[in-house]
Formats: sequence, C-alpha cells, structure tokens
Amino acid sequence: MSRIAYVNGRYLPHRAAAVHIEDRGYQFSDGVYEVIAVQQGALVDEGLHLRRLERSLRELRIAEPMAEGSLKTVMREVIRRNRVRDGIIYVQMTRGVAPRDHAFPKNPTTQVVMTARRGKPPSPETVAAGVRVITIPDLRWTRCDIKSVSLLPNVLGKQQAREAGAYEAWQVDRDGNVTEGTSTNAWIVTEAGEVVTRQASEAILNGVTRLAVIKVIEEHQLRLVERPFSVAEAKRAREAFMTSTTAFVLPVVRIDEDAVADGKPGPLTRRLRELYIEHVDAEGRQG
Amino acid sequence: MSRIAYVNGRYLPHRAAAVHIEDRGYQFSDGVYEVIAVQQGALVDEGLHLRRLERSLRELRIAEPMAEGSLKTVMREVIRRNRVRDGIIYVQMTRGVAPRDHAFPKNPTTQVVMTARRGKPPSPETVAAGVRVITIPDLRWTRCDIKSVSLLPNVLGKQQAREAGAYEAWQVDRDGNVTEGTSTNAWIVTEAGEVVTRQASEAILNGVTRLAVIKVIEEHQLRLVERPFSVAEAKRAREAFMTSTTAFVLPVVRIDEDAVADGKPGPLTRRLRELYIEHVDAEGRQG
Repeated sequence: MSRIAYVNGRYLPHRAAAVHIEDRGYQFSDGVYEVIAVQQGALVDEGLHLRRLERSLRELRIAEPMAEGSLKTVMREVIRRNRVRDGIIYVQMTRGVAPRDHAFPKNPTTQVVMTARRGKPPSPETVAAGVRVITIPDLRWTRCDIKSVSLLPNVLGKQQAREAGAYEAWQVDRDGNVTEGTSTNAWIVTEAGEVVTRQASEAILNGVTRLAVIKVIEEHQLRLVERPFSVAEAKRAREAFMTSTTAFVLPVVRIDEDAVADGKPGPLTRRLRELYIEHVDAEGRQG
Repeated sequence: MSRIAYVNGRYLPHRAAAVHIEDRGYQFSDGVYEVIAVQQGALVDEGLHLRRLERSLRELRIAEPMAEGSLKTVMREVIRRNRVRDGIIYVQMTRGVAPRDHAFPKNPTTQVVMTARRGKPPSPETVAAGVRVITIPDLRWTRCDIKSVSLLPNVLGKQQAREAGAYEAWQVDRDGNVTEGTSTNAWIVTEAGEVVTRQASEAILNGVTRLAVIKVIEEHQLRLVERPFSVAEAKRAREAFMTSTTAFVLPVVRIDEDAVADGKPGPLTRRLRELYIEHVDAEGRQG
C-alpha cells in the first residue's frame, strides 16, 4: 500500500490523503490517470505514459497542472518516499473543484493525486499456467481511447470475470469482435504465425505495454497485424495473451469454456514475455 | 453553495468536506447519486427518488449504507443546517474506500456524501422565452438507466451546448433518435396533440420529473405516447420541452438552427409546467 500520497502539492500520510467532495473527479468522473511500472526505481516507458497523459488531458481540455519536468520530479519523490523499487506509481488528474454543474467551471485548477506501491505482478505459477478470460459485451462509451476515470463498466466487467473464476474479461463489440480486456489489451497468434491485436482507435485504450510489445515484435522481425479479431477466431487461435503495465505479457490459455490450442501458454507468447521483460530491465538500468 | 456537508456520519464545513483519494467514486466512478428538489423545506417526490436510488445501488450491487428512515433523517438535517427552503439536496453514495483494484473490494463500506443549496431554477425570462438545444451523438455506455457518477460524456455534451450558446444538448442514438438531454429528459408534442417522450429503457435515465409529468398528463386526460422520436420529427413538432428536477418543465423553442413551430413556448408545454408546479407546491405543503 502507498504510505505517502501526493495531493495537490503536499505529501500526506496515506490515511489522511483526501480530495474535496466537489472535486469533479468524484462527482463527474471528469479526470484522467496513468499507472506506470517502476523497475529498479526507474519509471518504465515514462515518455510513452507522459505522452498519453498529455493526450488524455488535451482530449478532455483539462489544463496540464505543471511542467513535465516538475511532474517527473514529483513522481520520483513519491516513489522515493514510498521506498518503491519494483512496483507501480498511480497518477490521477481531474478538472478541478467547483460547485456542481455539468459544464466546465471557469478557470479551474487541475487537481493532482499520486500514490506508489510495491508491485504484485502475476506469480510465476500464474505465468507458467496461463490464465482464463471470459467474454462479455462491451458496454462502454465511444471514447475508450481516453484514459479517463470513467471506469464503471470496466469495474463491472472485471468483477464478472472474478466471479467466474477468470483473470480478465474480454469485451466484445456489436460486430462480435474483441475490443480489449477491462484493464489489458487482447492479442492472439494465428495459425499462420501472425501476432494480431486490434488497431488503435476510439474503441480501445492504446496501452503503453501494447506499444512496447509492438516495438519488440518489429525489432525481432516477427509478423504483426493490427486488426479486429472475433471471439470465434480467438478460440481457434494458436496462442492468446494479454498485455498491461502490471501483467506485462500474460498467456491466455482458456477463453470462456474453451481451451486455446492445447490449453498451455504458447511459445511465441513466452518469447514475447521474455523479450518484454528484457525491455523492462533495460528501462530499469537506464533509469 | 452548500455550507455544511454530510460526509460519512459527520457534518462538516463545506471547505473541509473531503473523501479519501482511494474512494472508489474518485478512482472508478463507482457510485450513484440523486438530486432532489426542496420546496418549502420539503423534499419533492422523495419516495420516487429513494426508490430510484435503491435501484441504482442494487444494479451496481453497492450495499445500502443505512435504513431508509435514517437516510430521511440525515437529508432533513442537511437541509436544515444549510437553511434551504427552496433549492436542492445532492446525495452521493460510492462503493467504498479500498486499495485500487477494478474488482469489488471485500466487505466495503458504502460512503455517503450530501450537500444542499438554495435553488437557482431557470429565470422567469428563460421560461417565458424558452431555450435552445443542440443535438449531438450519444457517446454514453449502455446502462444509462443507472444514475451513476460516470458522467464524463454528459459533462462533454453539456459543455458543447454551453459553447454553442444553447441550454442543453439532446443526445442522439445510432438510429437517429433522441435519447435524452445530458441532465434532462426530452419531450415533443406532435401535430396530433400527443405528448411524446422516449420510453424508459437502458438508453435513458428514468427521470423523477419525467414520471411526475407522466402522472400529471394521465390525471388530466392528455394523450401520452412513450416511444423514440427522431431529430427530424422533433424539428417538425408542434412543441418541445425538457424536464428535470431543477428545470421542472422547460420549453424548447429551437433545435440546432431550427425554430420549433413559431419559435415560442407552446400552450401545452406551458400548461404542463403550471400543472407540474402545482404538484411541486402540493409536495411542499405536504412536507
């Protein structure tokens, strides 16, 4: 657990860390966030996360609360004060505090909250065995490319997965194609050996781990195809996996009640996980 | 402005009223709310609001935080402490405070926040002139029947209206039919004199004022039809109006760039507004 939280300029003991009841994040989910992995004290793919944060703010027209340099300094201080060597930092920014009214307030001050905690990545046993996902209808709004705190459908989907004994829920659009997991991107490997993941659009969050894995695929001359795939295609796939900041590359061995191939993590998935971990380690050494 | 806020059992000065940074309302928009009109110190249609609140909580499987009797007592105390005779009370309930994880926490404690303020209903001039709405695509998730704080698309829509110099934005589904405003229900009166509003479904919030106006229509043997209507039909309508807890029944005289009929509030709209105000006054006298 985060022991010290950053809240609008102050470092507070976690239990005393609070925001105003009229913070627009609380009343309207009018805010954005990032979760960044910390490896050997360094921020993994910090640049990509900051670019995405900037983009989310811009799309919602929320003012940047501080210069990038200051933001980086504060993030490092939060990590330091929480003594996080390997874990995550959570950054949330909301439009401000104002008397409740749907429309934007005049001259709001962007609110900033950060926490950091040591990591609990999937256990080696989980990685070795792979995980199961269920498929559910995608109930979300049409701007899933914005990393907003408007996460209620994701909450309900993740809970549904948990209750079904699954690790994640893959959300499925009206056309029967998988958009993404509730907090992860979805991938398959086809019989032809192509690595397939849905192209970035307003229908998915363009995950930083997704981007890093794409880079790894390209660097190693593997075959990447960015396109939608259906649940049926995923169930017939040779391999399947998910990516996220905290899960890295995690094999999916069962979709609903169906085993993917022989129900064991596939070789390409294992290789991509290793290559991604090398990337994370390199980020750690550079930080 | 609310001067005293109720926060989880305590009555606090407004500026000191805060919730924890890991309140799930703040991190996941995992909560619900109600806005109830206060008239002569009494809560208008309190029963209908409490039924809907109960339903929202049930749909999201958030535990009721207190017995209905206690809730009523607290609401009255918040109104009293803020010296609100005519205005609104705002009630928000969220799933609880827990280390960040999408799935429901184990044994969470529902968090409760209430504020109350004197009312700023639309001015007599606004009511007399009627208002303009713009039409925008409905970007929201598929469970708009739940009164959740996952309101980011509503925020963006209302802001778009404000910037277009309009009072409200009517959201339009993929079939070209109006769902509802960003914080109001949408109505038209047809050439045949039918009062039309979209039927309750997962596509709209079943407004308490909507229900009260339906009751008024039925009591006065007017003709009600609950069905979707398109933007084109609305623009050709004899009259148009919106309903909400704070706007009551408010004439719509312009949709996008088109005048509705002669661009003045229609007689049936004016009559429904009067009848609804009689209902509100009666609630006030009973309270």
